[in-house]
Amino acid sequence: MTLPGRGRSRDLGRHFIVKPRSKVDLGAYDPADTSHVGDKEAAKEQLKENSEAIDALQERLFAERKRALLVILQGIDTSGKDGTVRGVFGSTAPLGVFVTAFGAPSAEDLSHDFLWRIHKACPARGTIGIFNRSQYEDVLIGKVRKLAPPAVIEHRYDQINAFEDLISSSTRIVKFMLHISKDEQKERLQARLDDPDKHWKFNPGDLADRKLWDEYMKAYETILSRCSTQGAPWYVIPSDKKWARNAAISAIVRRTLEDMDPRYPKPDWEPADFKVE
Amino acid sequence: MTLPGRGRSRDLGRHFIVKPRSKVDLGAYDPADTSHVGDKEAAKEQLKENSEAIDALQERLFAERKRALLVILQGIDTSGKDGTVRGVFGSTAPLGVFVTAFGAPSAEDLSHDFLWRIHKACPARGTIGIFNRSQYEDVLIGKVRKLAPPAVIEHRYDQINAFEDLISSSTRIVKFMLHISKDEQKERLQARLDDPDKHWKFNPGDLADRKLWDEYMKAYETILSRCSTQGAPWYVIPSDKKWARNAAISAIVRRTLEDMDPRYPKPDWEPADFKVE
Repeated sequence: MTLPGRGRSRDLGRHFIVKPRSKVDLGAYDPADTSHVGDKEAAKEQLKENSEAIDALQERLFAERKRALLVILQGIDTSGKDGTVRGVFGSTAPLGVFVTAFGAPSAEDLSHDFLWRIHKACPARGTIGIFNRSQYEDVLIGKVRKLAPPAVIEHRYDQINAFEDLISSSTRIVKFMLHISKDEQKERLQARLDDPDKHWKFNPGDLADRKLWDEYMKAYETILSRCSTQGAPWYVIPSDKKWARNAAISAIVRRTLEDMDPRYPKPDWEPADFKVE
Repeated sequence: MTLPGRGRSRDLGRHFIVKPRSKVDLGAYDPADTSHVGDKEAAKEQLKENSEAIDALQERLFAERKRALLVILQGIDTSGKDGTVRGVFGSTAPLGVFVTAFGAPSAEDLSHDFLWRIHKACPARGTIGIFNRSQYEDVLIGKVRKLAPPAVIEHRYDQINAFEDLISSSTRIVKFMLHISKDEQKERLQARLDDPDKHWKFNPGDLADRKLWDEYMKAYETILSRCSTQGAPWYVIPSDKKWARNAAISAIVRRTLEDMDPRYPKPDWEPADFKVE
């Protein structure tokens, strides 16, 4: 396993990063934009190169065992969270990659604060953790469906920022919002209804959430505006085209790992002292 | 994602399965055997096909959410447990595959029975769990290094069989012993000493374990003889050649999943009743 060069790859992240304390208007982001990656063939080639680089960097991270990487994926139903895990990390060795999908909290989860189940699932040093949904659900569905009083929701943004600052001591954090258009969601929901092999992915409740589209977009704008920090930035990824989404996310994950620059550890023993007999 | 055929693949497992209650002599197993897979090119082609089939079957298992698959990997140092995870499951979507590496038990682990930490890590319905080392360490290193009294060790074989019977209610279990020769281990340990990028994989304690080679082989013979059951069979995989090992294990995992035959669930709603607006 050799690392392709020590130089840094192209910095696609700067196109998509949400600058700390900026006010986000999602209407200004085109979910169908592909200009950053070129055409489909070029994007697939980029994804392949990035995936190989991520796999090599992940081995170093695992050997080093000093820091973790946490990748948070958020997006409205059908935005492609599962597909991103498959597309971007499908060829990374599963030894050091752990995916956690956060669904409705269990009775045990609910008997603690809202970050308890999140903290438990945070990646250990040396590993990559991928959150398919995350703590942000508590200020997304939590807010839109009024699952907690407004003052409680309001307090959560600061609690999340403080929590992310805490885990930053051992963990690098990147957060992706998979941004699709309302028309694209319609097509994808319809595909799940039309294809029997996709029925299991369809949840009748998704249609109720679709009716709350505008409220969800507002809730996303709030988390992007309030919770993109230097140490745990949000990226808004145009996701109508799956290939453009995968190319962009893989590029940012790769670049983040390059920036962390994990190294094989020096042994605390002298190789010349040992002989295998 | 289409499943390549509904027919069953070649049954390589019958070459390697340990029949329940048979008395195993590892001297009769050639770790360099490759006759079951043909040459290296053919084996790589088989691995590729098997990996794709495993990925497709895994999605069905995940959609079905009725049963889990537990893959146990055991073998002496350098036998290729990590390499098997990477080689066989490297292209399976990480959404439903969870690897647990069992190292020395923690203080919390030790404050419970020896199967407590194992049970906690068992895969949930719909997922594939891979154990890199397992409960069998407690009758391998535990026995060879006399970490518990002989009567306690002796009791553990039955405890393990009873435990595996318990989890079988939701989980299919396959257990692989990666069988390498003493000469092959010498080469692999030497490579870890010679290559700075592999130093992190070398543990000076491995040489002490190598001196206990014969005792370890005897301990393996005991678990193979006593713990290969109908519901949780052991397979002894010739592993001097990594490509032959990966082809064989991927074939058996694929065949096991085909035999489980997971199906996309029928929805409890009527697709025609829904319209996406």
